[in-house]
Amino acid sequence: MHAALMQRGRIWVDTVPDPIPQAGEVLVKTRACGICGSDLHAARHTEAFVNTSREAGGAFKLTTFDPVVLGHEFSAEIVDYGPHTPHDLAVGTVVCSVPMLARQNPMAVGYSAEIPGGFAQYMVLSRSLLQRVPDGTPDTHAALTEPMAVGLHAVNKARLAPNDAVLVLGCGPVGLAVITALKQRGAGPVFAADYSPRRRALAGEQGADTVVDPRVDSPYRYPELRRSENVVIFECIGVPGMIDQVFLAAPRNARIVVVGVCLEMDHSRPLIAINKELSVQYVLGYTLDEFNESLQRIADGSFDVAPLITGRVGLDEVAGAFEALRDPEQHAKILVEPWRA
Amino acid sequence: MHAALMQRGRIWVDTVPDPIPQAGEVLVKTRACGICGSDLHAARHTEAFVNTSREAGGAFKLTTFDPVVLGHEFSAEIVDYGPHTPHDLAVGTVVCSVPMLARQNPMAVGYSAEIPGGFAQYMVLSRSLLQRVPDGTPDTHAALTEPMAVGLHAVNKARLAPNDAVLVLGCGPVGLAVITALKQRGAGPVFAADYSPRRRALAGEQGADTVVDPRVDSPYRYPELRRSENVVIFECIGVPGMIDQVFLAAPRNARIVVVGVCLEMDHSRPLIAINKELSVQYVLGYTLDEFNESLQRIADGSFDVAPLITGRVGLDEVAGAFEALRDPEQHAKILVEPWRA
Repeated sequence: MHAALMQRGRIWVDTVPDPIPQAGEVLVKTRACGICGSDLHAARHTEAFVNTSREAGGAFKLTTFDPVVLGHEFSAEIVDYGPHTPHDLAVGTVVCSVPMLARQNPMAVGYSAEIPGGFAQYMVLSRSLLQRVPDGTPDTHAALTEPMAVGLHAVNKARLAPNDAVLVLGCGPVGLAVITALKQRGAGPVFAADYSPRRRALAGEQGADTVVDPRVDSPYRYPELRRSENVVIFECIGVPGMIDQVFLAAPRNARIVVVGVCLEMDHSRPLIAINKELSVQYVLGYTLDEFNESLQRIADGSFDVAPLITGRVGLDEVAGAFEALRDPEQHAKILVEPWRA
Repeated sequence: MHAALMQRGRIWVDTVPDPIPQAGEVLVKTRACGICGSDLHAARHTEAFVNTSREAGGAFKLTTFDPVVLGHEFSAEIVDYGPHTPHDLAVGTVVCSVPMLARQNPMAVGYSAEIPGGFAQYMVLSRSLLQRVPDGTPDTHAALTEPMAVGLHAVNKARLAPNDAVLVLGCGPVGLAVITALKQRGAGPVFAADYSPRRRALAGEQGADTVVDPRVDSPYRYPELRRSENVVIFECIGVPGMIDQVFLAAPRNARIVVVGVCLEMDHSRPLIAINKELSVQYVLGYTLDEFNESLQRIADGSFDVAPLITGRVGLDEVAGAFEALRDPEQHAKILVEPWRA
């Protein structure tokens, strides 16, 4: 099959062996697969990603310096079955799955040389983890199930109270997923901050009540975000120094939810957080229930993901798409369609 | 009056003007005043303390490079009244107070040149904030009201569930106050870790169920602290790098309560906390109710503070006591008694 391979930041297209489904697994054709911030991190900071992953454990890990087929936000179509695998979902059924294989040692899809991800024409997936995509849902929308589940999970972990005011820092795909889930849950008021006019516009489309350009305005001047209670801040940027900036700017007793993934050593001044009695909840991923809810909400339109899709490319254009995603004015989510002509 | 003064780490005894109570204030003779970790920080890291305090706001701040009389953990005896101050507490009454003056702009006691703290023969305190020390309570015990309130507050902020297992890292005065409050609240099992045999012994006396020397054992090998739920870790050390160490060692979903005050820029790897979905609650101080509860529990014996008092000194010995507190084998809490012969 054709695949886009990544090794230490270099991305190229090559022909690799088709993956072979084991017992309980299916072979699928990848319909669409989003490029995630963690794919960009994995490419740009392979060294840190691999080393920290080894040290930290957890699901979110790139395990190798060997060439990998990245891609873990996908929709796909069943084309064959492994041995001892039920055929209850017919060939041609369009499915989503959490990017894991339910093997004796569970394996992440799209983070290792052994288990290719969605930037390739075929993948293997575990039958037990498949979710049928409801009829009428575009493949491209279904591919956003995973990133939208990340936002939904972050909002659930925040345990919002009805009168919480919310600030979302960073309106990339993660911040936009958080805003979408916040508005679906009826949370608010929701403030959103990003330097990029395009991303601020997207934040508004997804339902943010007030969007702020931090270059010319401070979200913390708004009375709802200056209270010493009921303020929740979602950090969706994930670059070093952000948490310290939030410590400095946040009001007393604010709850900070860290969704942005900073892969480097970070620095902050605990005394500032102590003086304000801040709390920080670090979050990752989602539960299976949240993944399934995300797919259903995309299908029924209560998560409107169409505006987030700003580009669709074939395998040959993956390297260029990784570059293009450096510019927040150009793109939010780019989908790779490996069968695109 | 005689006072121990501190300026940029140097400590000496001098004669300074007696403080003059304003309206609503009383003049008190200091009976006993504990040396706190934050006094040591203020002396050893004055530059960082003043600068971070200015930047961070909050109550916990040293505001000046001028000579200050430190000391904010005290019991004292009423000797006179300011103008328009009720005389409902008689001269001779022994009292405690949160170390604040309830002026139009509230002022911290023992952190500025204007408001001398308890390492001096006299202080002024606000009548409205005084708590009468119950009869029969030794002055030295009552002086521990403030640090024990810090432990009580940290435990309250942790919102412990009945089946939470607890690890206390660091058995200095803060860790010991946390352990005391944990056991009074019936929490457990409580594990405590410290390099110092003396401090581990004190942790056991205050009720820790298991004490661990991290040089030869890891608290995280105990099954109760390896679960992926219901683990709470109190960080009571407050040196750079501790939070990152806890991130690395903690089990998934652990809740970390940061009570130790790290005054320097700290570093940690958010990816590790993200992979485990850790949460961090930074805490500071206590409420008035918690302060009062602390005094009552000391008075009725449910907080047994006697073992924590490892030294009693006069003003001339304050500089030496600051030095002696570098050695955890020698001391937990040293009380300054400014009228000691």
